[in-house]
Amino acid sequence: MTYCQIPPALLVIGAVAAAALAIRLMSVEQWGIYELTLNGPKEGNPFTEVTLAATFAQDSRTIQAKGFYDGEGAYKVRFMPDRPGRWAYRTAGNRRELDGLSGQFDCTPASAGNHGPVGVVGTYHFAHADGAPYRPIGTTCYCWAHSQPAQRERTLATLRASPFNKVRMCVLPKKGYRPAADDPSAYPFQGGPHNWDFTRPVPGYFRQLEKRIGELRELGIEADLILYHPYDHEALGLEEGMDAAADSLYVSYVVARFAAYRNVWWSLANEYDFITVKTQADWDRLFRLVQAEDPYGHLRSIHNARELYSYWQPWVTHASIQNGSAVGDFGRAVLLRDAYRKPVIYDEVKYEGDLPRRWGNLSAEELVHRFWQGIIAGTYVTHGEVLGPPKIRPAWTAGGGELRGQSPPRLAFLRQVLDAAPAAVEPIDKWQDLRTAGEPGEYYLVYFGHQSPGGWSFELPYQGLAEGMTFRAEVLDTWNMTVEPVDGTFTAKPLNAYRFKDAADRKIPLPARPYMALRITRIGGPAPSAPVVFRD
Amino acid sequence: MTYCQIPPALLVIGAVAAAALAIRLMSVEQWGIYELTLNGPKEGNPFTEVTLAATFAQDSRTIQAKGFYDGEGAYKVRFMPDRPGRWAYRTAGNRRELDGLSGQFDCTPASAGNHGPVGVVGTYHFAHADGAPYRPIGTTCYCWAHSQPAQRERTLATLRASPFNKVRMCVLPKKGYRPAADDPSAYPFQGGPHNWDFTRPVPGYFRQLEKRIGELRELGIEADLILYHPYDHEALGLEEGMDAAADSLYVSYVVARFAAYRNVWWSLANEYDFITVKTQADWDRLFRLVQAEDPYGHLRSIHNARELYSYWQPWVTHASIQNGSAVGDFGRAVLLRDAYRKPVIYDEVKYEGDLPRRWGNLSAEELVHRFWQGIIAGTYVTHGEVLGPPKIRPAWTAGGGELRGQSPPRLAFLRQVLDAAPAAVEPIDKWQDLRTAGEPGEYYLVYFGHQSPGGWSFELPYQGLAEGMTFRAEVLDTWNMTVEPVDGTFTAKPLNAYRFKDAADRKIPLPARPYMALRITRIGGPAPSAPVVFRD
Repeated sequence: MTYCQIPPALLVIGAVAAAALAIRLMSVEQWGIYELTLNGPKEGNPFTEVTLAATFAQDSRTIQAKGFYDGEGAYKVRFMPDRPGRWAYRTAGNRRELDGLSGQFDCTPASAGNHGPVGVVGTYHFAHADGAPYRPIGTTCYCWAHSQPAQRERTLATLRASPFNKVRMCVLPKKGYRPAADDPSAYPFQGGPHNWDFTRPVPGYFRQLEKRIGELRELGIEADLILYHPYDHEALGLEEGMDAAADSLYVSYVVARFAAYRNVWWSLANEYDFITVKTQADWDRLFRLVQAEDPYGHLRSIHNARELYSYWQPWVTHASIQNGSAVGDFGRAVLLRDAYRKPVIYDEVKYEGDLPRRWGNLSAEELVHRFWQGIIAGTYVTHGEVLGPPKIRPAWTAGGGELRGQSPPRLAFLRQVLDAAPAAVEPIDKWQDLRTAGEPGEYYLVYFGHQSPGGWSFELPYQGLAEGMTFRAEVLDTWNMTVEPVDGTFTAKPLNAYRFKDAADRKIPLPARPYMALRITRIGGPAPSAPVVFRD
Repeated sequence: MTYCQIPPALLVIGAVAAAALAIRLMSVEQWGIYELTLNGPKEGNPFTEVTLAATFAQDSRTIQAKGFYDGEGAYKVRFMPDRPGRWAYRTAGNRRELDGLSGQFDCTPASAGNHGPVGVVGTYHFAHADGAPYRPIGTTCYCWAHSQPAQRERTLATLRASPFNKVRMCVLPKKGYRPAADDPSAYPFQGGPHNWDFTRPVPGYFRQLEKRIGELRELGIEADLILYHPYDHEALGLEEGMDAAADSLYVSYVVARFAAYRNVWWSLANEYDFITVKTQADWDRLFRLVQAEDPYGHLRSIHNARELYSYWQPWVTHASIQNGSAVGDFGRAVLLRDAYRKPVIYDEVKYEGDLPRRWGNLSAEELVHRFWQGIIAGTYVTHGEVLGPPKIRPAWTAGGGELRGQSPPRLAFLRQVLDAAPAAVEPIDKWQDLRTAGEPGEYYLVYFGHQSPGGWSFELPYQGLAEGMTFRAEVLDTWNMTVEPVDGTFTAKPLNAYRFKDAADRKIPLPARPYMALRITRIGGPAPSAPVVFRD
């Protein structure tokens, strides 16, 4: 538990008390949360009238974090230190009791399992701040955080046992998926449906949500927070009612509260183009606001329905795309990666499900196939499930609970494959050899998709290969989750200008089933030479 | 012939002579070229030391065109009037004899076959300035304009008889494809290989090239001018030698000379990412220079090799992409259109040819297939051919001459199909029904590609359809160039949430050959209602 709270005795501190802090320094681990709580005014509108921020300093570096009002006269500033050692802070506010307070704390090294926030590496991929690779195998569970406690516990237990390391989830509620109506923290703003006071967030609502974010963090799961969604505006009138001022207050409040959680990603909206009250310029502005207010630069994207957002914008860190077709067959997913030159996560590719609507009736086989299509294109894919009788309990992707589908174990198998890979999986002879990916000369995945070949002649694209390199091969059944080593070794020999074959023309037998793949790993011979010369 | 030259008697005019112009006004047709020729200094470096421009005015509109030095003391300003009626001009220059000259001319309506320059319409498509649709069926003939006269004549005769309405062609020469070395206009700059004076263009070189542009214009063919290419820099040292100042002078000179030709498109480079001496910022700057200096806003793009350019940049009018894979199978080409939200022309998809290299060994069937793949994705494709013994004569795509391939007649057939279409061909249920395109409720092309179905049950995506609409159908053999009407009519009836079928469940027999298509046209029943409601 890295959550750190100042003891009550220190809650009310004046300028003279600052020196006393040196006596008993708090400590917080790297990428944990240091939280400063101050007492301030309750009268008026603390959300709009009172400002608070703190500057945190270590050596010559300074980082400013904005504070937020947490109700009952409590004002908080949260900070995620990114380096061990001593940190000092000083507050600034427009009330005497919040301004000019200073103190220090110690940051200890990150504990086991804490790798820091996720960022972009190698143009198309992700890693944690400590360098640990992060390969998103996400799921979608829009309103689990707004459900009843028992359901939340079920959801967390399911996630703990699942392969998923990212959850797409909504910040704002949706009719049918929120705490009981008599719960004072049922809604994010004071007022009620179609009668919101957007200048007065309900701290309890957001406090509940951040507990969920913290629970995911303890499970090593990234929280891909969806700030706006187009659902239920008729029932609640939330997104529909917010004007530019309400947007700014809401987004700033959310960022001030949540940014110190290392596992936060910002997803500006789900199906943004279905939120008809907002323009492209509105989204651009809100992106820039998140970028400006988040001291840590958490990942930022937005999710489309029919029209792709302009993911090339500098404030977008990765493309979070809805498009099932793009991972439905070979040669598609790589094109959007080429266009955007950023990591691409196909965050909605339709769901494993039994609904009559086509967005919710993929077979498990097809969903797993789409993951593999994404992987061999150097992109990533996100899971969703809408199985089971919706009148009895909500489907996983709507409200969490238990998973019922057949795809999660296969995605766990995929995750094992990725975790064992020596590097990020990259398309190699992109636009030419559409089923082969990996690291040129070192490691290959060859995926056959819906095809059911009876065998495969050892043959790889030329990039990174040299005559005499030796390889071992394994046959992967991506559906039955088996790995079968192939006897003997393979020795690379040029076949033509673009391909290498095995010197002994060996062929690998395959079981003539769909969803098979090969894993090929170099075991000897010359090392790959860089850079790879391009041939066309 | 719309090319208009001021008579020699008017070549040297002073301020007092301006009134005399009213006596015998020149006339030029709309989107033709009005050319003003003035005598000025020969001494020094006229290319760098002398400035000349003219402002052309009609009513309250003014358009400024820059002049250029054409050698032998002649300075020219060219202007393409876009509206009939009287125009007035006034020159500005840094030499007394070029400055402050004014005059008038009359612009007559465009003659038959002159539809004006091509621009973007409907986000993804093109039209001429007079509204006539323009559907690019281009070809690639890099150095035809630099070849010997007899070869140029052969090329023009071939183009005249071809379906092609756009030619990609290089402004700068390439070793082996240029006028004889003893021709003083063999090179674009004074000096010689690896010893160029980039401050002194050779007017004769560019005069030859603009004659070729004019010849294409008379054939109704757009000249997609490639300003830089990565070929032969070792032989000539042209692209390699140009620094930022040389780039600016060259690009400005080309734009000043050629922009008044209504059929000009600007292609900043071919395989731009293979021109290693230039950075992304260089290309961005040259784009902005072309945009600033071209008074008419001709189409602007750049062509990639391995790395797609950032086609979303505001100075790019359309994406000119090299990617054979993107039009190799269903569901790919549309993705880049979605990403860029601009017209996409797959300007290189590999060539019909018999070379061992994979960029030059497509079968004619495959090249035609790629055109159809592009069309049903709402994009466009460009032809290239590298057939025949290269030692005897250059291949078409290198140096022009005769076409030897089997694809051009099939592309003529495709052009007929497009010319007969009532509107631009658009994907309809994009990302879902990947083989059906057209205009919802009115007109459909259903393309089967490499598949060889024996029949097709009448079934269309729901968009734009209403029960009771009636349709006729034709079977198109895109390879054998036949159109076979299907007897009887089809009546739309809902099949499910996403599809309509024929009320009588009629099926259209197909000949179980590849490359078949269907053309389906509404003939009765209710008209399509707009807007189309989205269902997913």
